[in-house]
Amino acid sequence: MARPVYAVFRGCLADTPAMGTLRIRARAALGVDRRSGRIVGVATESDAAPAQLVREWTGEPVGDGDVETTDLGADQLLMPGLVDTHTHAPQFAFLGLGHDLPLMEWLETYTFRHESQFQDADLARTIYADAVRRMVRGGCTMAAYYGTIHLEACCILAETIRDAGQRAYVGKVCMDQNAPDYYSETTDESLQATEAFVHAVLGGQSAADDGVLVRPIITPRFAPTCSARCLHGLGRLARDHQLPIQSHLCESPAEVAFAKECFPDCVSYSAIYHAAGLFGPRTIMAHCVHMSDDDMRLVRECGVGVSHCPNSNFSLSSGVADVRRFVDQGIPVGLGTDVSGGYAPSLLDAMRMAAAASRTLVAARRDSAQPAAGSPLDAAELLFLATQGGARVMGMQASIGTLDEGKLFDALVVDFAAPGSPVPPPSVTPAVLRHQQADELEQAWRLRIEQFVFLADDRNIARVYVGGRLIHAL
Amino acid sequence: MARPVYAVFRGCLADTPAMGTLRIRARAALGVDRRSGRIVGVATESDAAPAQLVREWTGEPVGDGDVETTDLGADQLLMPGLVDTHTHAPQFAFLGLGHDLPLMEWLETYTFRHESQFQDADLARTIYADAVRRMVRGGCTMAAYYGTIHLEACCILAETIRDAGQRAYVGKVCMDQNAPDYYSETTDESLQATEAFVHAVLGGQSAADDGVLVRPIITPRFAPTCSARCLHGLGRLARDHQLPIQSHLCESPAEVAFAKECFPDCVSYSAIYHAAGLFGPRTIMAHCVHMSDDDMRLVRECGVGVSHCPNSNFSLSSGVADVRRFVDQGIPVGLGTDVSGGYAPSLLDAMRMAAAASRTLVAARRDSAQPAAGSPLDAAELLFLATQGGARVMGMQASIGTLDEGKLFDALVVDFAAPGSPVPPPSVTPAVLRHQQADELEQAWRLRIEQFVFLADDRNIARVYVGGRLIHAL
Ligand SMILES: [Zn+2]
Ligand SMILES: [Zn+2]
Repeated sequence: MARPVYAVFRGCLADTPAMGTLRIRARAALGVDRRSGRIVGVATESDAAPAQLVREWTGEPVGDGDVETTDLGADQLLMPGLVDTHTHAPQFAFLGLGHDLPLMEWLETYTFRHESQFQDADLARTIYADAVRRMVRGGCTMAAYYGTIHLEACCILAETIRDAGQRAYVGKVCMDQNAPDYYSETTDESLQATEAFVHAVLGGQSAADDGVLVRPIITPRFAPTCSARCLHGLGRLARDHQLPIQSHLCESPAEVAFAKECFPDCVSYSAIYHAAGLFGPRTIMAHCVHMSDDDMRLVRECGVGVSHCPNSNFSLSSGVADVRRFVDQGIPVGLGTDVSGGYAPSLLDAMRMAAAASRTLVAARRDSAQPAAGSPLDAAELLFLATQGGARVMGMQASIGTLDEGKLFDALVVDFAAPGSPVPPPSVTPAVLRHQQADELEQAWRLRIEQFVFLADDRNIARVYVGGRLIHAL
Repeated sequence: MARPVYAVFRGCLADTPAMGTLRIRARAALGVDRRSGRIVGVATESDAAPAQLVREWTGEPVGDGDVETTDLGADQLLMPGLVDTHTHAPQFAFLGLGHDLPLMEWLETYTFRHESQFQDADLARTIYADAVRRMVRGGCTMAAYYGTIHLEACCILAETIRDAGQRAYVGKVCMDQNAPDYYSETTDESLQATEAFVHAVLGGQSAADDGVLVRPIITPRFAPTCSARCLHGLGRLARDHQLPIQSHLCESPAEVAFAKECFPDCVSYSAIYHAAGLFGPRTIMAHCVHMSDDDMRLVRECGVGVSHCPNSNFSLSSGVADVRRFVDQGIPVGLGTDVSGGYAPSLLDAMRMAAAASRTLVAARRDSAQPAAGSPLDAAELLFLATQGGARVMGMQASIGTLDEGKLFDALVVDFAAPGSPVPPPSVTPAVLRHQQADELEQAWRLRIEQFVFLADDRNIARVYVGGRLIHAL
């Protein structure tokens, strides 16, 4: 018997269509067309049979046998997959190591040395397989990865991700100056390898097609390691192939100073990227901690998205990025793990560290009588950053990030009663719920979401779907 | 056949005898006398048989049958148990909830309401069983717990901990003013219940005996909720029974202002406790974020220990405590989870958050051209704070905190190759080790310790021993 074409999930759906808006649909049904990997419809408070619902959604003559129905458990909910807008796949091998140094020294002492080893394809295969497995297990359904400068290893990374079924942007790192001899490339090598990588990954598909699982992303490491000719060449490639772009911006004061020193004609760090045609609505800039007014203006006016990487910012003593300020100015913000500047390859950790960063600003401004920092980020806002916010930074806000009709089904089944789970068991939580007077189901789920954000780990992520396909199950 | 009286562990031992000193004994044997629960000796680089070693350590005629030998795996090491110097057992029921409010509002909105329910003994049994299980599973071998104001529930907490085999101080919370009607007590009730609790828990044993697993601790909630008569009465009880003392100090600016308002004759927050005889070498003060010069002086001169609770300080927007300053002034510091001001009942989290807090200070002072904050806390220092540092804050530095002869055997077997572990598997890490030129075993273990501090979770804590007794195994 053929596998049913449609899947229907019944139970609680939780997502965040807008910053600060937690949408709980406690009694819902969601249908997926497995052929397209997309959500065909969502019904709430309906007692209709799954096949009936699918008929209403699609207008097709769907029978019972065409639908596979999954009833979520009483302690489970369905939510959008988590989006990591910034991470370095090769650096998964030194997770948690070497945070005794600030950014620039850290790069030279650990990062460049280690990344240079990825000329070894076997090493790439080992490290990347582990990295992607870890990401998926943590509920990350789409990520923007940096590889290394090596074409072959980057192709292995793209292939590894595709095999794992994760959605991703993958970038071949470019660095043709201010890099150590043992880990550098010429300008021409950089541009040619990038173009070859783009063709290899796309294989004739369009970079604009949101259904293509793994797509290339133009990746100058950061301005200081790229010559003006390299940056301009990359800008042209991005335009010609309609590709997204990722790099680092205003991470630490020393790095900002170095960037300006390398490009003395540019009035700001952002102006370097902007002049090269690298600043636009498909651009992801990581960190954005130390932003001048000109940086803020260019990012805002060009529609650049910010990848907030709080674990990395804490770990490398970079400083604290002001997410509320970006949000208030309408700048798209998502979360990044920035492994292994950040030690945790987990969006759950990123949400928690973003909470800590936001509260740090609130406290620091209160105590120094500076203008208030606005309210700290709450659980609903953190979940937005990790899902729809990240999707927007990736230019994928119409395709993923929420559980809406027409979007790709990138989703998680979260299980709050998983064995060994860090979330307190149902036997303990009712006391809280009673205390909170949460006599309504929806309110109970809101508390569960808060617990998900602050307590859950991969043991609570029971199933991971990307494009309608189950890619991980406990 | 009787169970052997001695246990010998062979493999790698890791501990931190002093702040910043990571001691790795890669090829060691450690002996435990199960009757006393104490370490009888440690040998390094010895090929002697276990019984021979025990004979040398004890001078007793020990045969092979008197010794049970455990050979640790190649990916395992033995380390001291983790010490939590500050947590609230009743608040485990609302872990991860309600961090949308700053301290004083948070207390009124969530904490007092919830704690008042612990007049219900069944609720206490349920919540406390889960809380203690969670602590032990996370590798916490000794904790300083706050209960509630209720005598019966506090006795249940002490009993639950004793049954679990964990070492602890347990405090009946005192609050006879500035508390809501539904959760308050008179001064006499507060003092009488505390005295009754002390007798109930000690049951004739001496509070000065480090071998007594669960002991009472004098616990005024914090100065504002206690009248001067209550504080003085508690000071007398502490002196008469040689008891440790715990409370909160200088957590947030609003709380500091409130404390001074309640005690206008005292020149500092610390002076309130000091005047009541509550400041001494057996005193644990949580937070100490906003310390005046007089606070620093009193804490230092009286030998008070500081419980640094970074997760709570971040979560409640309290501010960032300056651990380096305490350390430099010779003030004992340990880590506290402060559940549920802190959302994570885990010393591993506390180490990570302490790292983030320390790096925040480094960055903030650098960027505001203030005097430098000193170097950020490194992995060895963080582990010290979570073990021997915490032991010292508890007044237990001669009894626990390191793996030394004569100390109680409170220890963890850490397994770096545990299934599903967040620490990268051995197949991935060798690349790092090669890169780090860690051709020596000891250096490899140093990296493992860094990974333990930043990546591990309860899945890496294979076995937990307290006083020589195995109280948890995966
Ligand atoms: Zn990065
Ligand atoms: Zn507390």
